[in-house]
Amino acid sequence: MSSAAESPLAAYSAYKFFTITGPKPFVAHVQIQRPEKLNAFSEPMWLEFGRIFRQLSEDADVRAVVLSGAGDRAFTAGLDVQSASQDSVLNSDGNDPARKAKKIRAHIEEFQSSIGALEKCEKPVICAMHGISIGLAIDISCCADVRVCASNTRFAVKEVDIGLAADIGTLARLPKVVGSNSWVKDVCLTARDFSAQEALAVGFVSQVHEGKEKAVQAAIDMATFIASKSPVAVQGTKELLNHARDHSTADALRYTQLWNSAALQGADFPAAMMSVLKRQKPTFAKL
Amino acid sequence: MSSAAESPLAAYSAYKFFTITGPKPFVAHVQIQRPEKLNAFSEPMWLEFGRIFRQLSEDADVRAVVLSGAGDRAFTAGLDVQSASQDSVLNSDGNDPARKAKKIRAHIEEFQSSIGALEKCEKPVICAMHGISIGLAIDISCCADVRVCASNTRFAVKEVDIGLAADIGTLARLPKVVGSNSWVKDVCLTARDFSAQEALAVGFVSQVHEGKEKAVQAAIDMATFIASKSPVAVQGTKELLNHARDHSTADALRYTQLWNSAALQGADFPAAMMSVLKRQKPTFAKL
Amino acid sequence: MSSAAESPLAAYSAYKFFTITGPKPFVAHVQIQRPEKLNAFSEPMWLEFGRIFRQLSEDADVRAVVLSGAGDRAFTAGLDVQSASQDSVLNSDGNDPARKAKKIRAHIEEFQSSIGALEKCEKPVICAMHGISIGLAIDISCCADVRVCASNTRFAVKEVDIGLAADIGTLARLPKVVGSNSWVKDVCLTARDFSAQEALAVGFVSQVHEGKEKAVQAAIDMATFIASKSPVAVQGTKELLNHARDHSTADALRYTQLWNSAALQGADFPAAMMSVLKRQKPTFAKL
Amino acid sequence: MSSAAESPLAAYSAYKFFTITGPKPFVAHVQIQRPEKLNAFSEPMWLEFGRIFRQLSEDADVRAVVLSGAGDRAFTAGLDVQSASQDSVLNSDGNDPARKAKKIRAHIEEFQSSIGALEKCEKPVICAMHGISIGLAIDISCCADVRVCASNTRFAVKEVDIGLAADIGTLARLPKVVGSNSWVKDVCLTARDFSAQEALAVGFVSQVHEGKEKAVQAAIDMATFIASKSPVAVQGTKELLNHARDHSTADALRYTQLWNSAALQGADFPAAMMSVLKRQKPTFAKL
Amino acid sequence: MSSAAESPLAAYSAYKFFTITGPKPFVAHVQIQRPEKLNAFSEPMWLEFGRIFRQLSEDADVRAVVLSGAGDRAFTAGLDVQSASQDSVLNSDGNDPARKAKKIRAHIEEFQSSIGALEKCEKPVICAMHGISIGLAIDISCCADVRVCASNTRFAVKEVDIGLAADIGTLARLPKVVGSNSWVKDVCLTARDFSAQEALAVGFVSQVHEGKEKAVQAAIDMATFIASKSPVAVQGTKELLNHARDHSTADALRYTQLWNSAALQGADFPAAMMSVLKRQKPTFAKL
Amino acid sequence: MSSAAESPLAAYSAYKFFTITGPKPFVAHVQIQRPEKLNAFSEPMWLEFGRIFRQLSEDADVRAVVLSGAGDRAFTAGLDVQSASQDSVLNSDGNDPARKAKKIRAHIEEFQSSIGALEKCEKPVICAMHGISIGLAIDISCCADVRVCASNTRFAVKEVDIGLAADIGTLARLPKVVGSNSWVKDVCLTARDFSAQEALAVGFVSQVHEGKEKAVQAAIDMATFIASKSPVAVQGTKELLNHARDHSTADALRYTQLWNSAALQGADFPAAMMSVLKRQKPTFAKL
Repeated sequence: MSSAAESPLAAYSAYKFFTITGPKPFVAHVQIQRPEKLNAFSEPMWLEFGRIFRQLSEDADVRAVVLSGAGDRAFTAGLDVQSASQDSVLNSDGNDPARKAKKIRAHIEEFQSSIGALEKCEKPVICAMHGISIGLAIDISCCADVRVCASNTRFAVKEVDIGLAADIGTLARLPKVVGSNSWVKDVCLTARDFSAQEALAVGFVSQVHEGKEKAVQAAIDMATFIASKSPVAVQGTKELLNHARDHSTADALRYTQLWNSAALQGADFPAAMMSVLKRQKPTFAKL
Repeated sequence: MSSAAESPLAAYSAYKFFTITGPKPFVAHVQIQRPEKLNAFSEPMWLEFGRIFRQLSEDADVRAVVLSGAGDRAFTAGLDVQSASQDSVLNSDGNDPARKAKKIRAHIEEFQSSIGALEKCEKPVICAMHGISIGLAIDISCCADVRVCASNTRFAVKEVDIGLAADIGTLARLPKVVGSNSWVKDVCLTARDFSAQEALAVGFVSQVHEGKEKAVQAAIDMATFIASKSPVAVQGTKELLNHARDHSTADALRYTQLWNSAALQGADFPAAMMSVLKRQKPTFAKL
Repeated sequence: MSSAAESPLAAYSAYKFFTITGPKPFVAHVQIQRPEKLNAFSEPMWLEFGRIFRQLSEDADVRAVVLSGAGDRAFTAGLDVQSASQDSVLNSDGNDPARKAKKIRAHIEEFQSSIGALEKCEKPVICAMHGISIGLAIDISCCADVRVCASNTRFAVKEVDIGLAADIGTLARLPKVVGSNSWVKDVCLTARDFSAQEALAVGFVSQVHEGKEKAVQAAIDMATFIASKSPVAVQGTKELLNHARDHSTADALRYTQLWNSAALQGADFPAAMMSVLKRQKPTFAKL
Repeated sequence: MSSAAESPLAAYSAYKFFTITGPKPFVAHVQIQRPEKLNAFSEPMWLEFGRIFRQLSEDADVRAVVLSGAGDRAFTAGLDVQSASQDSVLNSDGNDPARKAKKIRAHIEEFQSSIGALEKCEKPVICAMHGISIGLAIDISCCADVRVCASNTRFAVKEVDIGLAADIGTLARLPKVVGSNSWVKDVCLTARDFSAQEALAVGFVSQVHEGKEKAVQAAIDMATFIASKSPVAVQGTKELLNHARDHSTADALRYTQLWNSAALQGADFPAAMMSVLKRQKPTFAKL
Repeated sequence: MSSAAESPLAAYSAYKFFTITGPKPFVAHVQIQRPEKLNAFSEPMWLEFGRIFRQLSEDADVRAVVLSGAGDRAFTAGLDVQSASQDSVLNSDGNDPARKAKKIRAHIEEFQSSIGALEKCEKPVICAMHGISIGLAIDISCCADVRVCASNTRFAVKEVDIGLAADIGTLARLPKVVGSNSWVKDVCLTARDFSAQEALAVGFVSQVHEGKEKAVQAAIDMATFIASKSPVAVQGTKELLNHARDHSTADALRYTQLWNSAALQGADFPAAMMSVLKRQKPTFAKL
Repeated sequence: MSSAAESPLAAYSAYKFFTITGPKPFVAHVQIQRPEKLNAFSEPMWLEFGRIFRQLSEDADVRAVVLSGAGDRAFTAGLDVQSASQDSVLNSDGNDPARKAKKIRAHIEEFQSSIGALEKCEKPVICAMHGISIGLAIDISCCADVRVCASNTRFAVKEVDIGLAADIGTLARLPKVVGSNSWVKDVCLTARDFSAQEALAVGFVSQVHEGKEKAVQAAIDMATFIASKSPVAVQGTKELLNHARDHSTADALRYTQLWNSAALQGADFPAAMMSVLKRQKPTFAKL
């Protein structure tokens, strides 16, 4: 597996459900580490997931992140349904629907916030998917910046099949992630499988590779390439693209002015410009 | 024709310009029934169109809808230009432009509201298109959830050719229905024809079938499949996807929490979850 | 070159960095005219660029515009980095970061406003790209309505390579110009080249032609076709599509009602409708 | 009572729970006519209320509307709690919370839409309040353009006292109707009474009169004065003020341009302008 | 002092800079406890402030909260300027403005988030102010639901006097807290003092009492009154009013439908309604 | 006249319809100089008005601005109706309503943009009003930051009386300038006069002075006081308050972070903070 030779990142050694390694300088590789359960997520797992990406966001030694799933069979099979079916929020004795509703809201909010930490992470995240990639796999990958996958990936927005509208982010983000609304409605309403090729054709992923190993390697290569660029430029680009998605063009242009009014005063801009004019390789301070 | 053997739905027998049948349990099939005029729409027709979809929205015996056009030649040739050219709003004797403007606004609003009833219908609507599908055909199909078509379909955003900017919804919705803004501007500004293959390539439709019959059958199959799922999950998914299109991610996530705070307390979620764990086929109460 | 035989438009003869010709009635062809520098933009150039498109917007003799770059090598290589590196705003002696920030904001705003004049131009603009088309080339073309290109075009969102997040519009508009967010993040974060074919596949351009000459000719043909339509219909369509991108469906529908409450009272609507019914070629007054 | 001598408006004679009279040319006076129940609203009443204001909106013989309550004791005591407590929506046998939620949503939506018809009515509505004016009285009056009251009026946002958050519009509109957020939270969270003087001090009402008769007369006088103005100007002013409340300044200014691009072409603008220059009293066509 | 006899709430005994007592059932009283420094805030204090209000938000034993300052002289003199002037973020050795900007952004975000926890707290918060109430005192109190004060209160939006635009919330919230924009600009641009009477006149506070003790007692009385109401109704009312401030009327009405679709199924609505009909005092379960 | 002893500002001596003086260092006083016509505005005047405020915005020698009207009788009587009644836009020979509509839109946009230059001016503007202050006077003063007036001021939103809905900004801004929506609707729909006292009571002005001279002096005093503060802090405060009016709290807080991420790096913040700690008078560099 591509991560075999990757050295663990010491600052992240205490996490239980994920391994975090450093395949290249300034690149972190997060692996979902519960292959015996198809990397399905229990509640402690997604809480940990949130903490990891909040830490990565502030870690000046990390400039780009790859997310993948351990094992051969699945990126993740989504929510661990067995564990979720015993969920205290829905099985609480009390049966006042108004009070239950408050608990459910709070529960979904915490779940959304943990998964959404990936989107809020200020460093670009490339998601390398393979095998079973259903349910929560789509919520998670919609938060990533770039998605690549192995040709054997089996995707599905599976939530309708367990009787609910997906609520951890797929329905909020997918319509803005791919171009065809007809396709989005199709896969979300039917919960049917779709393949790597279909995902590529509609633009959900931007690369398909033969097998998991190559997909992960391609993600690491892209992360390494991005990590060689000015972190001021890269992190600004991620922030401004995410902001633009949710705001009007006029608002986005004004926000860009403010962002660059400080960013352009930094050392990266003249350093990178000189390196282009002199055809030298620049180096950049941490961020 | 695929609808030959379909039994009419009694509750909808009084409509004049549309036939509504029930090809499968919980599936309604609405057919535009004016083939001698290429299914072109007069004002009484689009008023009836609005009433039908408002009724379908509240009909607990319907879980998914297919919309198609009767006859071999056209889904619809759009607005009945001859009838519209005698339209009282524009031909009224009075010639005070301020007063005419109020009448035009009210006229367009009622027209938009009637066609928009398809989008507001809480049940998924699959639009099966064939032959001539121009002008109003695009406004209508942009309101549908999923679009499929026959390989002989001839599409056009035709309004520029009759001297107006399309005002019944195409220009408001199409940019969010397909991904390529360059293509949207091209077809809207030139009013040129585009083919089924081109529609598939840009994601306007998500399936192309050989001939009208197969396209309609595919739509009915998809509707039947969706109708077998939890209606709580399906209708929630439609609502949340439509809401997400017009709101920021943060707003959409919050709205989702509220929606599911009631929906998850229903019987469908545990029933569907159990059926997955036990690999049984679930049944769901009406909605 | 396709513009060889094009007669210059007298009203635009005083511009220094651009030539503006009239290849067809009601069609203007703007060419970036600095081929010896790969059509790179200095500050006086983008100020002039803004003035030209503000003039075209109000010029009733123009109904559609083509934008291309002079010479064989480049549409434009973007910002003239050498000239920009001596930019007074960033090199000003004073070093109070708060005061520098105000100057930078004002500088970016003026730059955005000049390039954005293309988007605000009320006439459709078709951008014909070829050869090197990087950096500012993307900001500019994202403001155009339709993009076509030569098969040899080399695109790149190059800003990250000179140490900054693109701030003249690419990051604000590109996510709404093409459908695949994964692809947008990829090209913006890596600053890598992408080809004409890749641009076509994701919908960034809607046509690829063999060589610059054919691309420009195709753009002129499209502009000529559009210029034959009702200018009331065409300009309304451009405005309503741009408005829809940044507003909710409900807001867009209401805005459309207002727009057409005046537009439909004009002579173009009955004239065009009659021409369709009588199969004659209509003519339209200037706008 | 001031309405004693008012002649009933024939077009509105079929309504059961409201009397509609014409105290002055172009002025309609709607009275809630259930004084024996303190003008409390049952479901058939608020459905009728919606129909009345939709009819007034389109009635070219009406230019301004006054709304008051019949009898001495109450403008309205709000929802008829006794009748609502037997409401089928909440008492339906079925007890699936997801399905109940859908019915409640639909019920509230219809209720909101009926009361909101007052806000959507294109003619200005002046609400004259007196005596008990609690619960739904606040929802209704927040939809009106101007509120005046008798000095004996007793107001309360009463909903918290019957165990719910007000859902027919008070919480959505009141924060934008008066300036002090501290006061809004106070009266909404405590459900306490507030007096005419307090309502005047915070700007909820703009006039207080001694007794119901004088309040109603003042409202009729204001309506009569407004009805003497250009209906194009008056109805445009109402629309633009309501639009501005919910949009940014930039959006509001643009919307205004569109509105007046048709309105200024009408006869009212030159007629009114001439009347000012020549100090004559103008007359205006119906609208 | 009114809090003398108040018993400390055990669950909040570990906090260092604030004392939290329970003057009445379901009422919490938070006191800023640094009177020797005029209750000025250091960084550890505002971090603790955020933790307290997050805990109160989830504490089912609390239904309403009072916030006041310990001692006679000040509610709070705002930020502890001496401690802030040694702030590591601004004094860090490195001097790359782009990197400093990231640290400042993160610092302000954490500060905003800690103070904003008061606004997000799902229980109503009544702020009782007295004496010196400047700078951060305004940011904090703008997050409260209701503001009352002693007649000796001295208010000021003080930030301009220390060379910055207020960034912890005053400028974002104050324009929506009081009605007069002219007054808001006046006090924010001049940093001048304003009195309790002026605060009452513009609606910044809704009650003025003679002396701190009476102001705090009035706040506790109001909190006690609110705590006697249905917590489902009260918390829904707070949420819907805050939501309405930042959304259009149409969005707010729809959000309200969803909220009450679950809330109305609870026991509080029928219990409270019955209590009104039978004139009994209701009791409500925790929330 | 209060401006008698004020020295003209050389950089503004070429303007024809306005005199611009410098009563105090860093303070500019703009006077509308057409007293023989009650300071009514012709088109060349409002074009000049826009140019003046764009120049003031960029003039580092100006930190605060006062706007008043020359002469004893009027701040301004608004639009010069006689001149406007001969306006070419509305009187153009052509009578195609669609083409006229485009000209009207463009005309209003330019008018709005010229008056709106006051709001966009980055320096605070205090508007001192007296005598006749109707029509355009309200549009203009709504763009100012602070409004003060003489006790003899006669205000009116006069547009309805000349047959149009006010379109230069009053209807877009007034609902967010004062707190009582009932009052806003009253004065906009009736076009009635309102007095200085009424303007003060609703918060439209924040000070009333006895006579024009004292009102102008108070405005100059306030401007002088503001001009003594850090221009980084003052201009940031104006920008952030204007931004907050049109955005959600979450957006406003985020925008504030970006703004201060550069502003806090400037010299004003430590200088002002030190001056507070050491009780010295600070000086600030130009901006």
